[in-house]
Amino acid sequence: MSLPVDNVRALEWCEQGLRVLDQRQLPEKQVYESCTCCDCVYNAIHSMQVRGAPAIGIAAAYGVVLAAADRYKADPMSWKKMIEGDLDKLAASRPTAVNLFWALERMRIIIAELGEGDPLPFLLMEAKKIHEEDIQANHLMGEHGSQLLEQATGLLTHCNTGALATGGYGTALGVIRSAYGKKPRQIYATETRPWMQGTRLTAWELKQDQIPLTLITDSAAAYLMSKGRVQWVIVGADRIAANGDVANKIGTYSLAVQARQHGVKFMVVAPTSTIDWQLENGDSIQIESRESRELLGAYYLDGEEGINVWNPVFDVTPADFIDVIVTEKGVVQSPSQNQLMRLQTVTGKQNIG
Amino acid sequence: MSLPVDNVRALEWCEQGLRVLDQRQLPEKQVYESCTCCDCVYNAIHSMQVRGAPAIGIAAAYGVVLAAADRYKADPMSWKKMIEGDLDKLAASRPTAVNLFWALERMRIIIAELGEGDPLPFLLMEAKKIHEEDIQANHLMGEHGSQLLEQATGLLTHCNTGALATGGYGTALGVIRSAYGKKPRQIYATETRPWMQGTRLTAWELKQDQIPLTLITDSAAAYLMSKGRVQWVIVGADRIAANGDVANKIGTYSLAVQARQHGVKFMVVAPTSTIDWQLENGDSIQIESRESRELLGAYYLDGEEGINVWNPVFDVTPADFIDVIVTEKGVVQSPSQNQLMRLQTVTGKQNIG
Repeated sequence: MSLPVDNVRALEWCEQGLRVLDQRQLPEKQVYESCTCCDCVYNAIHSMQVRGAPAIGIAAAYGVVLAAADRYKADPMSWKKMIEGDLDKLAASRPTAVNLFWALERMRIIIAELGEGDPLPFLLMEAKKIHEEDIQANHLMGEHGSQLLEQATGLLTHCNTGALATGGYGTALGVIRSAYGKKPRQIYATETRPWMQGTRLTAWELKQDQIPLTLITDSAAAYLMSKGRVQWVIVGADRIAANGDVANKIGTYSLAVQARQHGVKFMVVAPTSTIDWQLENGDSIQIESRESRELLGAYYLDGEEGINVWNPVFDVTPADFIDVIVTEKGVVQSPSQNQLMRLQTVTGKQNIG
Repeated sequence: MSLPVDNVRALEWCEQGLRVLDQRQLPEKQVYESCTCCDCVYNAIHSMQVRGAPAIGIAAAYGVVLAAADRYKADPMSWKKMIEGDLDKLAASRPTAVNLFWALERMRIIIAELGEGDPLPFLLMEAKKIHEEDIQANHLMGEHGSQLLEQATGLLTHCNTGALATGGYGTALGVIRSAYGKKPRQIYATETRPWMQGTRLTAWELKQDQIPLTLITDSAAAYLMSKGRVQWVIVGADRIAANGDVANKIGTYSLAVQARQHGVKFMVVAPTSTIDWQLENGDSIQIESRESRELLGAYYLDGEEGINVWNPVFDVTPADFIDVIVTEKGVVQSPSQNQLMRLQTVTGKQNIG
């Protein structure tokens, strides 16, 4: 068996700034864009050229680097004041993924610590560190998570949580990658309406790495489970509340309900930066709703009379439905507030719960 | 409140033969095709110009009329022998909906009873009777089903079970139509991947009748239920086994599991012709799988290496998950073999169970 492969990069820092693979155009076209200013990065996140909670955080960190370069060049005395607006703008690019705010906070801390002089080297170092730590965390999660899958012959994932959604390798898809590296299994992916991350991104990404996959419609998952074809559902997270409730791509909660019904295990894979310790539970997580044309666009005019759309693009899965949360710091069985809090004191890998 | 409206007809017998609204082209274009021979009707069903279990049965009955006209014209002595192949061909047009076989069986009985002379008037009378009985059954089911919904403020349906799927008015959508006629409520419809019956057909059909609806992705249904926005899921059926197991559009089972989890009631609406009394339970219902390009078409070449598709277009919901089956003969609560069998002896409307 070959080692897990991982040929795709959604984000790369280069001389011109942040090089971004435009995920709106996959799989038809592989188009890279250079973001050379903070507004470019805002647009890349807001328009979903870059998506996936960890990737959004990394992109925002590089966005701060570009903002600092411009602000410092414009006025070396007032740049720290001027960059506040840039940080706020980046924070408003997408509402649900907490990694965005977490990455901006790390950059904010560096900014606060900086003295006079060019801030660029220090901020770029921090952004690259955020990026590299994310890849490293993904490899660790891949290892932790795949250890739980030794008996599994069928795995189902949702949305895209791979290299395209992260600094590299992936969260849930990283675990699947690691598991597949140990022994081949049947990998199922939902197409993931309305944005088709499963079809457009996960299928494309695994194809680059020559890992075979079987696509299903989102609504075929329960029937697939009833046939006994999968033993684990493995998903990522956009935000995890302190009690273990998980906000993730719309349809995640549906899969969790179905998994429980069929005795299929449910695994959430996310770096600890996804945990929002301030949030008691998932009820108050802000859920992004997107335009009705994501559902109607191909068929009706925008605002077609009598046809309304409810298009929340995330949902909340209560901790009760989750068998295990895999983080870079360890594996949390039957997540709860107490179980999750033990991650805060972990240094190496641990099995919690 | 105005009376329930119903402006759409999927099928109409006219001088030229069977006039069919090509549902593949909705909602962009409203194109009617004339089927003037049995093969035309086979193609209309097979290619899904006509779809929906009751509509398929009606179309097939008219297909027999057209077959008989041609066979009798070709040879008045041997037409009964020659038409056997036509009946077999029509029976092979789609595998899952039992109404197809039921309608063909009714036509076969008439054929067997006919003496010499032109069979056309007798067969056309039977086909029209099947058609008219279906519309009448739908109105009855609308009345029976809507009586259960008096307290409901939110209803969720799946696929298209309206006038487009039947002789007219609809099964599940007929119940929703009747309920809406009594008092307005929030009607939700899933888009219904991969064929988008919800978006393309249900939204279009209700728009013709000025009944407002809200579309959701299939995978948003569980989240919708968790918000308490719907009290009933109302779906049709392609085949009901003698024990009450229901084969219906892929995703129906998923909705049933989610409904049970959230204390949402689950109603199946289908004429008794949908019940396959020979079938002990749902395990042996033949489930149609369709082409992978229904999922990949917009994004990948057919047969793209490494990307497989599992595309069953129906699933089976065990009777345990169903609160009520509404038929034209009455309402079956908590369906089981014993409960369903009581329908066989019913003449007027009854509440069974």
